[in-house]
Amino acid sequence: MTEDGEIRAQLEARLGHRFERPELLQTALAHPSFAHETDGTRGNERLELLGDAVLGLVVAELLYAGRPDWNEGDLTRARAALVNARSLAARARSLDLGAFVRLGRTEQRTGGATKDSILCNVFEAVLGAVHLDAGLGEARAFVERVFGDDLLRAPTAARDAKTRLQEWAHAQLHETPTYRSVRDSGIDEDAERFEVEVWIAGEAWARGMGRTKRQAEQAAAESAYARAELTP
Amino acid sequence: MTEDGEIRAQLEARLGHRFERPELLQTALAHPSFAHETDGTRGNERLELLGDAVLGLVVAELLYAGRPDWNEGDLTRARAALVNARSLAARARSLDLGAFVRLGRTEQRTGGATKDSILCNVFEAVLGAVHLDAGLGEARAFVERVFGDDLLRAPTAARDAKTRLQEWAHAQLHETPTYRSVRDSGIDEDAERFEVEVWIAGEAWARGMGRTKRQAEQAAAESAYARAELTP
Repeated sequence: MTEDGEIRAQLEARLGHRFERPELLQTALAHPSFAHETDGTRGNERLELLGDAVLGLVVAELLYAGRPDWNEGDLTRARAALVNARSLAARARSLDLGAFVRLGRTEQRTGGATKDSILCNVFEAVLGAVHLDAGLGEARAFVERVFGDDLLRAPTAARDAKTRLQEWAHAQLHETPTYRSVRDSGIDEDAERFEVEVWIAGEAWARGMGRTKRQAEQAAAESAYARAELTP
Repeated sequence: MTEDGEIRAQLEARLGHRFERPELLQTALAHPSFAHETDGTRGNERLELLGDAVLGLVVAELLYAGRPDWNEGDLTRARAALVNARSLAARARSLDLGAFVRLGRTEQRTGGATKDSILCNVFEAVLGAVHLDAGLGEARAFVERVFGDDLLRAPTAARDAKTRLQEWAHAQLHETPTYRSVRDSGIDEDAERFEVEVWIAGEAWARGMGRTKRQAEQAAAESAYARAELTP
C-alpha cells in the first residue's frame, strides 16, 4: 500500500466508511487555503455546501422521528444546539480530522488544523463526500455514529442555553446576562406570545420568542450563545 | 369515493404523487391558524421544518451535479433565487395549493389562501410529507417536476438580481438602488475580495461579497431582494 493509501485507510477506519470514489474524500480534505495555493486542485467549498444541506436534513429527520411530541420551535432549537460551529468542530476533533486536513502554508503556520471554523468546514465537506459516495442512508448512519447519544441528549442541552450562556459570559466577559421582556401579546395560549431580549455588558445580544417567558428566555440565550460562539 | 377522497385524488393528481399515508397530506395542508382552532388537530409546522430541509438538500444536490463549474458562491446565490418565499409561493400557486389549504377563520376571511407566506409554508409542508411518505427519491422527482426548467434557468435569474431589485424599488418605492464599495482586500484573486453595500431611499439594505465588484453587487442585490420580498 502506498503512503497515501495507508493514510486514507486510517481515516476511513475512523469515519467508518470506505470510499468507492476516494477522490471525493481527497477533495473534502482540501481546505480553500490549500486549493488556492495549488494549481488545478479544487477546494472543499462545494462539498461543504452540500454537506451542510445533508446535515440539515439528517438532523431534522432524526429529531422529527425521535421527538414526535416536540413542536417546531423545540426542533429548531435542538437542531441549532447540534449543528453549530462549536459542536461540529468537536465532532471533527473526535474523528481527528485536523490530522488529515490539507491547509495552505499560512494556515499551517498559524495552527489552522485546530481552528473551529476550519474543522467545522472539513466535517461538513466529509459528510457531503460520504453522501455523494454512498447516498443519504450512509450519510445518516455516519451522522448517527458521530453524534451518538447527543442526538437524544439534545433536549437537555437546548433547555440549558441560559446556563451555557451565563458560563460563557462569566468566563469571557466577567458579566452576567440579564433578560428583559420586550413583548407579551397577551392572546392565544398556543402561540409564541412572549418575546424577550438578552443583554450582556450593556448591549442587547439577541431576542427570543416562546409560548412561556422561560421558553422565550431560553430561545434568546440560544441565539446569543450561537453569536458568542462566533466571537473569537 | 367520499367527497374528501375525491378532493384528495384531485390534489394527488396535481402533485403527481399518490400518498400511501394520506394522513401526512392532511397534516401538511393544516395551517397553524386552522390547527389552533381545532382541538387535537396537529398543524403543519413540523412538516414545514422537515420540508424546508428536504428542499435545501434536493436543490443543493441538483445544482451541485448540474453545475460542476460553479463555485459555492454561485451555488448559494442560485439556491437563494429558487427557494425564497416568493418563488415557493409561485410553485404553490402553480399546484393550486391555495384551494386545498385548511385555514383558521380569520385567515379565511382575510384571504390567507392567497398570501405568499402561507403558500410558501404549505408548499414546504407538502414536500416534507412526500419525503416521509416515499423517501428522498420521490421528493427529488417532485421538486424536479415543480421547478422544471427553472432549475437550469437559475443562473440567469441569479445574475439578474440587480435588475429585479431595481424593478422592485421603482415600483414600490420610486427609488433607484445605488451601490457603494465597502472593501477591496486587494489580494488573492481567487477569494471574494470585494464587498459592496446596496442603498435604497437613504438606507443600507444589504451587503454582498464577490470575486469581482459586479459579483459583489449582484450578491448584495440578491440579499436586498430577499429582504424586499419579506416586506409586505
